[in-house]
Amino acid sequence: MIKAKIAELLKSNQFLQEVEVKGWVRSFRSNRFIALNDGSTINNIQCVIDFEKTNEDILKRITVGAAIKITGTLKESLGSQQSVEVEVKNVEILGDANPEEVKLTILSPKRHTLEKLREQAHLRIRTNTFGAVMRVRSKLSFAVHSYFQQNNFHYVNTPIITGSDAEGAGEMFRVTALDINNTPKNEAGEIDFKKDFFGKETNLTVSGQLEAETYAMGLGQVYTFGPTFRAENSNTSRHLAEFWMIEPEVAFTDLDGNMDLAEDFIKYVVKYALDNCKDDLDFLAERFQNEDKTKPEAERSEMGLLEKLQFVTQNNFKRVSYTEAIDILKNSKPNKKKKFQYPIDAWGADLQSEHERFLVEKHFKCPVILFDYPANIKAFYMRLNEDGKTVRAMDILFPGIGEIVGGSQREERLEVLQKKMRALDIDEKELWWYLDTRRFGTCVHSGFGLGFERLVQFVTGMTNIRDVIPFPRTPQNAEF
Amino acid sequence: MIKAKIAELLKSNQFLQEVEVKGWVRSFRSNRFIALNDGSTINNIQCVIDFEKTNEDILKRITVGAAIKITGTLKESLGSQQSVEVEVKNVEILGDANPEEVKLTILSPKRHTLEKLREQAHLRIRTNTFGAVMRVRSKLSFAVHSYFQQNNFHYVNTPIITGSDAEGAGEMFRVTALDINNTPKNEAGEIDFKKDFFGKETNLTVSGQLEAETYAMGLGQVYTFGPTFRAENSNTSRHLAEFWMIEPEVAFTDLDGNMDLAEDFIKYVVKYALDNCKDDLDFLAERFQNEDKTKPEAERSEMGLLEKLQFVTQNNFKRVSYTEAIDILKNSKPNKKKKFQYPIDAWGADLQSEHERFLVEKHFKCPVILFDYPANIKAFYMRLNEDGKTVRAMDILFPGIGEIVGGSQREERLEVLQKKMRALDIDEKELWWYLDTRRFGTCVHSGFGLGFERLVQFVTGMTNIRDVIPFPRTPQNAEF
Repeated sequence: MIKAKIAELLKSNQFLQEVEVKGWVRSFRSNRFIALNDGSTINNIQCVIDFEKTNEDILKRITVGAAIKITGTLKESLGSQQSVEVEVKNVEILGDANPEEVKLTILSPKRHTLEKLREQAHLRIRTNTFGAVMRVRSKLSFAVHSYFQQNNFHYVNTPIITGSDAEGAGEMFRVTALDINNTPKNEAGEIDFKKDFFGKETNLTVSGQLEAETYAMGLGQVYTFGPTFRAENSNTSRHLAEFWMIEPEVAFTDLDGNMDLAEDFIKYVVKYALDNCKDDLDFLAERFQNEDKTKPEAERSEMGLLEKLQFVTQNNFKRVSYTEAIDILKNSKPNKKKKFQYPIDAWGADLQSEHERFLVEKHFKCPVILFDYPANIKAFYMRLNEDGKTVRAMDILFPGIGEIVGGSQREERLEVLQKKMRALDIDEKELWWYLDTRRFGTCVHSGFGLGFERLVQFVTGMTNIRDVIPFPRTPQNAEF
Repeated sequence: MIKAKIAELLKSNQFLQEVEVKGWVRSFRSNRFIALNDGSTINNIQCVIDFEKTNEDILKRITVGAAIKITGTLKESLGSQQSVEVEVKNVEILGDANPEEVKLTILSPKRHTLEKLREQAHLRIRTNTFGAVMRVRSKLSFAVHSYFQQNNFHYVNTPIITGSDAEGAGEMFRVTALDINNTPKNEAGEIDFKKDFFGKETNLTVSGQLEAETYAMGLGQVYTFGPTFRAENSNTSRHLAEFWMIEPEVAFTDLDGNMDLAEDFIKYVVKYALDNCKDDLDFLAERFQNEDKTKPEAERSEMGLLEKLQFVTQNNFKRVSYTEAIDILKNSKPNKKKKFQYPIDAWGADLQSEHERFLVEKHFKCPVILFDYPANIKAFYMRLNEDGKTVRAMDILFPGIGEIVGGSQREERLEVLQKKMRALDIDEKELWWYLDTRRFGTCVHSGFGLGFERLVQFVTGMTNIRDVIPFPRTPQNAEF
């Protein structure tokens, strides 16, 4: 008796062997064909039942969503949809799914909107789309670790709860163990955080970069891959309050090396998905195509999903300085025709999503790395160029996604860093440990952050970021 | 010119080749021998300098902690400590380390206590011990992912911020975006959490299990590996407020299968460390031995660190029911001689650390899996046995560590689960989505949680859990 996952059985040629397979009923038609799925693959195995020989009560209980165990014989299939099927000898109902109750859920066999599926995030994983997306997400996660480990990076878990609020990457969530209805007060009548769990105010991290830098100064090259948080009230299809971020940090590497690393890394993980998620990506590509057809012609994608992925793995990213980009934008048709919501008239402007999309999707038609941004629109820790007005920052922009990577060479010179911190009113005492890295054996170093969900979106073709993480956290939503 | 990491150079036999190597000075003796480390390995490369041909100012700046770039010739070493060395042609100082300032830090070349090192967690990564521990931690992380991915488990990121507080695994941290000094109130004068970011009260997760179960019911076999939190005021060497947990969850698998999985998994990751971290583990084994020597003879370890690791990979874990364990304990010498702080007199007692240690370290002298615990000392979701008083729970106990794994077969029967929840006053409305998994195609399923830091402790031989995570979070401590 072969006990195997459906993914294996579908590849098997051990015909006429007895098999046992467990899974959930996806469909049951003509009292004869059960489509069974166990999550190991997007493909169902067809199990052919002889209804005349099957107990009527059992037959009735083979309903969509039910968990069943089937024993039978593996056969070559005559149908065109599959190469293998199971001739059923016995069906055991493991867990029923009452059709009247199923009807009220997204398990019911009809088209549900993605919004509706989100409300039942605990069940949507049983649909083809979410099974595919989450299997691809899992493989991409492993590709991330594989890439860095093969290249001798060390994985670092930077803290989630942080006592430091000087990172300046965005609004933070507060973490407290105080009784919030009855907070202890100090003599000044303010909340006494000395009585809180950590003896001080604490928040959820917005980035592990500063801590990762301290580790790069010991281990040479490190990466983080963990959750980060933003308490920004952005109710868009591009933002999550809780998302996973990948942050490599490399000693003795400048911005050019950083761009090389980011490009090589992205190509590796996308290729890994192409090589290891064929069935799921084929399904998602079809889904992508169908969705595209519903759009106005002007908004349709020039490439299919698989083409897009192959394009990224096979072509160099275009590297363009901020200054060049501003020139291109200033002289662009949409700018001259005043089609941009934010017209570009001078060097120094912060680029908006519409500008990034123009550069990537209309002008260069490929992933773009913008570098050497004006210092005053970037973070304090980025290395000042000799011109005194730009910093060694880089952003990678992707078609349909926008910014997928933000990185920089770090300011390694203690005095320059301190001067910048003073100008921005960042407390040196708070970041004493960060400054220590510049005091003791400082060196050129660089790193970047990649929002993992943006990557999963790009690879799966899902347009809403809430559909590429199991249980999305957004304003007004922390269900499950 | 070969530009390479020290780990590679030390294995190289490209003698007489020109090399360039960058790193931090670990020591500089006799104005001649620089021990250089770049984090790629615990081993330093010896760089031999001709002080007569070297600028005096440069010589002075070759100090412990400084970052330097060396170019020179790779040579076979005549010293016994290493096989390879670099005959220096040029030294470039990349980043100084002022000896007067270094003296005030743990970088100064003398013995520092682990407590002292913890206060400078941003610098301790530059020591041999923490370099070794954190490289092993990184490899173990990858081993975790490799094991599950090879066995076709899907990685799932369960939410960190949770609106559910029914898990009952421990005290939780509150997460809020409200202005805590000026909270909005509702008509009853209570804090109006509807105005908070998520529109409800939210906390940091204590476990991803319940969410992982919903995913196992779609994807078949899944695992989490992410941070979890406890707001318990436990100031011990065994507890962290923030730690990383691994939680596999498997559909169609009972407690026996769960124990098999846990044992196979642990053996795999320990063997992976033995196979991939030889230099670091050799160093840590020596450290372990030296530390052991400082202990009273009765407390010393019977095995060295490497022996312990090999023992675990090569021997079956002993599986013992709770009931058998109670019998053993009741009749044990320490119990009869009243040496236990909590004497064991009857079935039903919760086991304390002293009892677990007796079973593992004195009685069985090997890892032990205890199973079938009394229902009333275990969580609501564990499957009730036919006897009506025990549940299908299992804990894995390790020498020197205590509980490293806690798992169970889950109660898959809706009515039994509801009855248990009512008895424990757990709100069914809050867990409507969890109960749905039992309503729609429920099935036998099991899983466990493994505290990653406990595993790292076991493999590295570090006795304090604060020394196996980069920036430990404990009561009164959220520095960095």
